Amino acid sequence: MEKVIKVGLLGLGTVGRGVYRILVGNAEKIAQRTGARLEIARILVRELNKDRGLELKPEILTADYREVVDDPEIEIVVEVMGGIRPALDYALQALQNGKSVVTANKDMIAAHGRELFEAAAVSGVDLLFEGSVGGGIPIIRPLKHCLAANRITKIMGIINGTTNYILSKMTAEGTSFAEALAQAREKGYAEADPSADIEGLDAARKLAILASIAFNSRVETEHIYVEGISRISDRDIAYAGELNYVIKLLGIAKETKEGIEVRVHPTLIPRLHPLASVSGVFNAIYVQGDAVGNTMFYGRGAGELPTGSAVAADIVEAARNRLNRVSGRNGCTCFEQKPILPIGQMQSKYYLRLVVADRPGVLASIAYAFGDKEVSLASVIQKHTDGRRAEIVMVTHKVSEQNLRDALNIVERLSAVDEVCAVIRVEEEDLQEGAL
Amino acid sequence: MEKVIKVGLLGLGTVGRGVYRILVGNAEKIAQRTGARLEIARILVRELNKDRGLELKPEILTADYREVVDDPEIEIVVEVMGGIRPALDYALQALQNGKSVVTANKDMIAAHGRELFEAAAVSGVDLLFEGSVGGGIPIIRPLKHCLAANRITKIMGIINGTTNYILSKMTAEGTSFAEALAQAREKGYAEADPSADIEGLDAARKLAILASIAFNSRVETEHIYVEGISRISDRDIAYAGELNYVIKLLGIAKETKEGIEVRVHPTLIPRLHPLASVSGVFNAIYVQGDAVGNTMFYGRGAGELPTGSAVAADIVEAARNRLNRVSGRNGCTCFEQKPILPIGQMQSKYYLRLVVADRPGVLASIAYAFGDKEVSLASVIQKHTDGRRAEIVMVTHKVSEQNLRDALNIVERLSAVDEVCAVIRVEEEDLQEGAL
Repeated sequence: MEKVIKVGLLGLGTVGRGVYRILVGNAEKIAQRTGARLEIARILVRELNKDRGLELKPEILTADYREVVDDPEIEIVVEVMGGIRPALDYALQALQNGKSVVTANKDMIAAHGRELFEAAAVSGVDLLFEGSVGGGIPIIRPLKHCLAANRITKIMGIINGTTNYILSKMTAEGTSFAEALAQAREKGYAEADPSADIEGLDAARKLAILASIAFNSRVETEHIYVEGISRISDRDIAYAGELNYVIKLLGIAKETKEGIEVRVHPTLIPRLHPLASVSGVFNAIYVQGDAVGNTMFYGRGAGELPTGSAVAADIVEAARNRLNRVSGRNGCTCFEQKPILPIGQMQSKYYLRLVVADRPGVLASIAYAFGDKEVSLASVIQKHTDGRRAEIVMVTHKVSEQNLRDALNIVERLSAVDEVCAVIRVEEEDLQEGAL
Repeated sequence: MEKVIKVGLLGLGTVGRGVYRILVGNAEKIAQRTGARLEIARILVRELNKDRGLELKPEILTADYREVVDDPEIEIVVEVMGGIRPALDYALQALQNGKSVVTANKDMIAAHGRELFEAAAVSGVDLLFEGSVGGGIPIIRPLKHCLAANRITKIMGIINGTTNYILSKMTAEGTSFAEALAQAREKGYAEADPSADIEGLDAARKLAILASIAFNSRVETEHIYVEGISRISDRDIAYAGELNYVIKLLGIAKETKEGIEVRVHPTLIPRLHPLASVSGVFNAIYVQGDAVGNTMFYGRGAGELPTGSAVAADIVEAARNRLNRVSGRNGCTCFEQKPILPIGQMQSKYYLRLVVADRPGVLASIAYAFGDKEVSLASVIQKHTDGRRAEIVMVTHKVSEQNLRDALNIVERLSAVDEVCAVIRVEEEDLQEGAL
């Protein structure tokens, strides 16, 4: 007789609907690959009678979460409600009840991963969260399994679709930030309150998850240096282009001898870097390992079916583990606790844009202030704006953030300097052998 | 007491050396992630006394394969000899002896996958082969696990580094095929006899493996239509560029209602396609699923450490499965046998280059012949070479290969047509929602 594994859903919003459509639509294929039929037995919803455009037996809907997390027949609970409360309480209760839990909830995993993993370990069940980063892109399992023999040295990710859409639009069409944001809203790529996306917090949560896995050391969101894209001007995008760079909002995590660097900020990357051509709402995560070299994982970072694909794959995995009685064998991988470097200690190149008085000696006084703090300049372009004011664009060599900040403090006070309009970090890699 | 799992290597060439260096160099990290220490206990080599640049205890080397595959203490046998015999015999014997087998041998897996999987199933052990396709790029496990809830509809892969290096070089620098091949040889990216790479056979073996997994139906290399790159001229690359295309050697596999399409051939792809910017020896596999949409996996397609990374990850997986007593649960996934479409039935757009007499009415006669076979033209560019001969570059709309061939048979016999110099397939996708 065919085996059946019962699945309960907490939530039937965008991702929940995707999971439902995939599990029902690809039921045969999934049963073949799983070795059991996956049956959605119960779904927690807020409104029982809302039309969701799905053919649902009304009796599987419930407004009482206990009918999902306490049902003894349900083996896998899928949390796709979003937000931290009450999702966390329900997930914990499901784990305590011995159910494997699958979630796409980055906020919850980033903030309460430790607690959830501990509950999963006590019950010997799985806690899986592939859908929490990069939508449909396989990244959590590749990091944990496919790159298991590597010391991961660096991750650079375009892990927020809204900001990538906005920056791509600004780059392709020269539009302003405000215009591009308005268009993102129109297309449904930006929420009514887009601040968590725009200001980099969404990316930071995802980076916390990626860095924790990559470095086997828990990284909390609040330890991540975060800068959003709202101050990026179309001028900077244009000047970056002239210098053969593209501006992307990147989540960057590096392991150095001194500790872990984790930061989210707009970044200039060379036009030929594989991340540079990742446009629109697509996401990509670039991973460097000491054995594998550079790899990249690309795809749709959000949406009903892409995120549903990642969640459904986790459900298949959880089901197979239950069938084989090996649930809970892939638990928390934060074996160590490594120090997080303060932003001042990080090294980077910088793109700078200043408005200064257009008169002899100004550049010399700026260069002197930089030199005094060991900031050396790789290139300087002077852009005249009118007879009295000039715009200067500079790219520095690698320098510690603290030195740069000290230098900028002095430069800003120079009487000839009107404004430091932009300070954007630049990421560059050595040319890869075998690359053209 | 710390658990130890003993590993035996068959071969210590490029990949074997990589595996050794990774398992020794990252031993601590790997032990943490595996839950056991991996110890390389025995290595089969041809010459015992050769200097390999590794710090090896001489007693672990052996010239007798039985000391690896028959050693009762060895739990995992890693076949990195390459070639089909005797690798296949050794691998089969190891499987029969109850050892899990890890291999990077695409030739062996493509030609004898069924036999090997059967032996693994009988013994209840793992047969893992992530390193057989795409070097260090995680692709086999993502296809089998991370995309498990998808019906995979299409795979397009740059899965041969030698040809990608040559085509990238021709594209970037306008060099001829012969020149680019010479440079690939100089850099060690092409073998002394590069025909398996150049003529597409290497890519076909890898595509057979990918398509078998993606479609859950065994695809044999001999069923794949294969065309190499040796006839690609720098003229075609230049004209493709003018039309905003890039020429890549792609392995393409599609599942249609009528059956499976599998083919390896030079292909024009739009310059903005994510595969277009994959340069040099890098590989990338573009995968389309009905839920996930378009994804891409990018990285180094060959080399000691990258391929070693994939093999070592499989060793970790095999070890964890042995620790958890669930070896052999991820066996062959060819659940069905779907028909393979003959090349004549495949639909494609085509890029054509002809040399014709430069006189009135020639184009009309060509267009008439095409129209008669339902080949309609999307664009025609006339390039004058001298007063008497003209070069014509055409791109067709989608048409069946059979109709195109019938039309070309007639066109070739037209008195005004000197030569059909190039016939290259064009792959184009509908614009993606959310992409710019």
